[in-house]
Amino acid sequence: MSRIAVIAGDGIGQEVIAEAQKALSVALPGYESTEYDLGARLYNRTGEVLPESVLSELDGHDAILLGAIGDPSVPPGVLERGLLLRLRFEFDQYVNLRPSRLYPGATSPLADVKPGDIDFVVVREGTEGLYTGAGGNLHTGSPAEIATEESLNTRYGTERVIRDAFERARRRRGHLTLVHKTNVLVHAGGLWKRTFDDVAAEYQDVTTEYQHVDAAAMFLVNRPHTFDVIVTDNLFGDILTDIAAAVTGGIGLAATGSINPDHTHPSTFEPVHGSAPDIAGQGIADPVAAISSTALLLEHLGRADAAAAVNAAVERELASRDSGTTIRTGEVGDRVAADVAGQLS
Amino acid sequence: MSRIAVIAGDGIGQEVIAEAQKALSVALPGYESTEYDLGARLYNRTGEVLPESVLSELDGHDAILLGAIGDPSVPPGVLERGLLLRLRFEFDQYVNLRPSRLYPGATSPLADVKPGDIDFVVVREGTEGLYTGAGGNLHTGSPAEIATEESLNTRYGTERVIRDAFERARRRRGHLTLVHKTNVLVHAGGLWKRTFDDVAAEYQDVTTEYQHVDAAAMFLVNRPHTFDVIVTDNLFGDILTDIAAAVTGGIGLAATGSINPDHTHPSTFEPVHGSAPDIAGQGIADPVAAISSTALLLEHLGRADAAAAVNAAVERELASRDSGTTIRTGEVGDRVAADVAGQLS
Ligand SMILES: CC(C)[C@H](C(=O)O)[C@@H](O)C(=O)O
Ligand SMILES: CC(C)[C@H](C(=O)O)[C@@H](O)C(=O)O
Repeated sequence: MSRIAVIAGDGIGQEVIAEAQKALSVALPGYESTEYDLGARLYNRTGEVLPESVLSELDGHDAILLGAIGDPSVPPGVLERGLLLRLRFEFDQYVNLRPSRLYPGATSPLADVKPGDIDFVVVREGTEGLYTGAGGNLHTGSPAEIATEESLNTRYGTERVIRDAFERARRRRGHLTLVHKTNVLVHAGGLWKRTFDDVAAEYQDVTTEYQHVDAAAMFLVNRPHTFDVIVTDNLFGDILTDIAAAVTGGIGLAATGSINPDHTHPSTFEPVHGSAPDIAGQGIADPVAAISSTALLLEHLGRADAAAAVNAAVERELASRDSGTTIRTGEVGDRVAADVAGQLS
Repeated sequence: MSRIAVIAGDGIGQEVIAEAQKALSVALPGYESTEYDLGARLYNRTGEVLPESVLSELDGHDAILLGAIGDPSVPPGVLERGLLLRLRFEFDQYVNLRPSRLYPGATSPLADVKPGDIDFVVVREGTEGLYTGAGGNLHTGSPAEIATEESLNTRYGTERVIRDAFERARRRRGHLTLVHKTNVLVHAGGLWKRTFDDVAAEYQDVTTEYQHVDAAAMFLVNRPHTFDVIVTDNLFGDILTDIAAAVTGGIGLAATGSINPDHTHPSTFEPVHGSAPDIAGQGIADPVAAISSTALLLEHLGRADAAAAVNAAVERELASRDSGTTIRTGEVGDRVAADVAGQLS
């Protein structure tokens, strides 16, 4: 029996996760779920973000389904670092996965693209680089202040995520693009490029390409159809995945997984959108990204068929929408769950 | 008499700079120019990129007009670091300026934008951050390898570029967006944010905004019209300016200045496009970006009227083009120079 920890979180997180769980009940019948009340409410009540006891309880689960974290009442960065990034590091979620597809019915800001034209995944490293917190300030607040940030990278860490990306490329259209900035960041860039070339030698069936991050950012806008799988470091991945979300119709529809491919700790799956406090509690938040997260979760748990059913249902839901009609969160969840049920019965 | 150093460089650099000089002769009559043969040819002949003697000769000029640097025969990074970045650091070119406009006649990959809708400038820091080269590798080539990159930031360096950005915002539509990643890069982000807020207090007439780099990258794609001036660090600026180029029709049309606003050393002005060896020597390279660089140069030398004339001529040139007609490099240069002459006579 799969054990799923559910962190609905703040704002619309509650609403969209309820709908995601409808789909999940159908796709993964009888899964056990435990709800964890983390996020702004806990922080404002107790000053705690992720108590040690909760961390170790979470560790006993097969996966974490997360809604959204964040509220204007909490200082920026506290919940992001204390919860989202902490889980990535504690649970060694070294593959940050972001599928990027232009769905039928979704509207891209790009001219001349139609559904199906854009279909790639970004494999972003999740545990190294500029995200480790290394660095400091000296003479803070004075004219003499200096501040450093250190990007820490290991062969171990780059090789495992690059391998994962090659595996994914092999299961897709067989093309992998490494993105870095080797012409300026020679130390980390050198490590990434050499590791990439070493691993590439074992994947002769995958064609490879290298792009500087500035060029890649541009190509994501003016020729996104040329990408299949992108592998890149933590910070570049953060930026590129948001460009990817933009060209496929906004973060409203995107889902992401912070994945530990070795299953030594749970992986986290979540919609990319935030807690949207302005529309929370009105039943008008779109739950499709949260529902798509369950497809990534199912995939990770080895339930490829169930994942495909959820994806197909989401696709039909989006294709069926008239532009301009108001979303009813609960109705979307019911429709998608029924569609999944129909496919799997 | 203005003294301009000209580094035409590689590939189409030669051709487009010849046209830029036609416009410059009209806009800045009697300027003295010295040509420097730097780039792939010099490197392949001598192994040198920027001899010390040339560096100090360049320092005697009021500005540098640069074409393009780079050739497949030179290992990636050598010329970029040895020439372009070296000039930025040696000549303290701390403002990397990138005007981003959608010209009439240019084609944006975005739907629903028309000329005039996109008009912002990015003020990118040019001498700090992850571009200093700080960092290293240990156990290189072994499974135990680690690599670091260090981002170095000073109050001195952030304050001066932020001040420059506020001045530019004041001369434009009065809106300035700081872009960083304060929720993750807390050390450098904290310095940037505090410095920004301090300087903002002196510019009550400028409205300000803060965006994380991932959000900014997305907004440049799905609402680029909301930006007026963006100020950001060296690496974020590198990425954002290429997104800016993409949404305004590609790097083929963009110009940039690596500027020392204090005039203690020369500033460099160049088209953003590369040396394009595939089309070099055929007389079909578009010189408008190189010509636009001269407008930035003129602006920097205090010749606002001449700069405006060049910009107006470039705009007319682009608006007059039928899509699909082949560019004739020399004809474009003649037309633009004649237009500038007409305006200034
Ligand atoms: C919330 C933030 C810390 C996070 C990141 O920077 O990784 C987010 O932008 C993401 O992409 O998951
Ligand atoms: C060529 C390269 C070193 C340079 C940079 O990264 O700054 C370029 O991309 C630019 O934007 O001027």
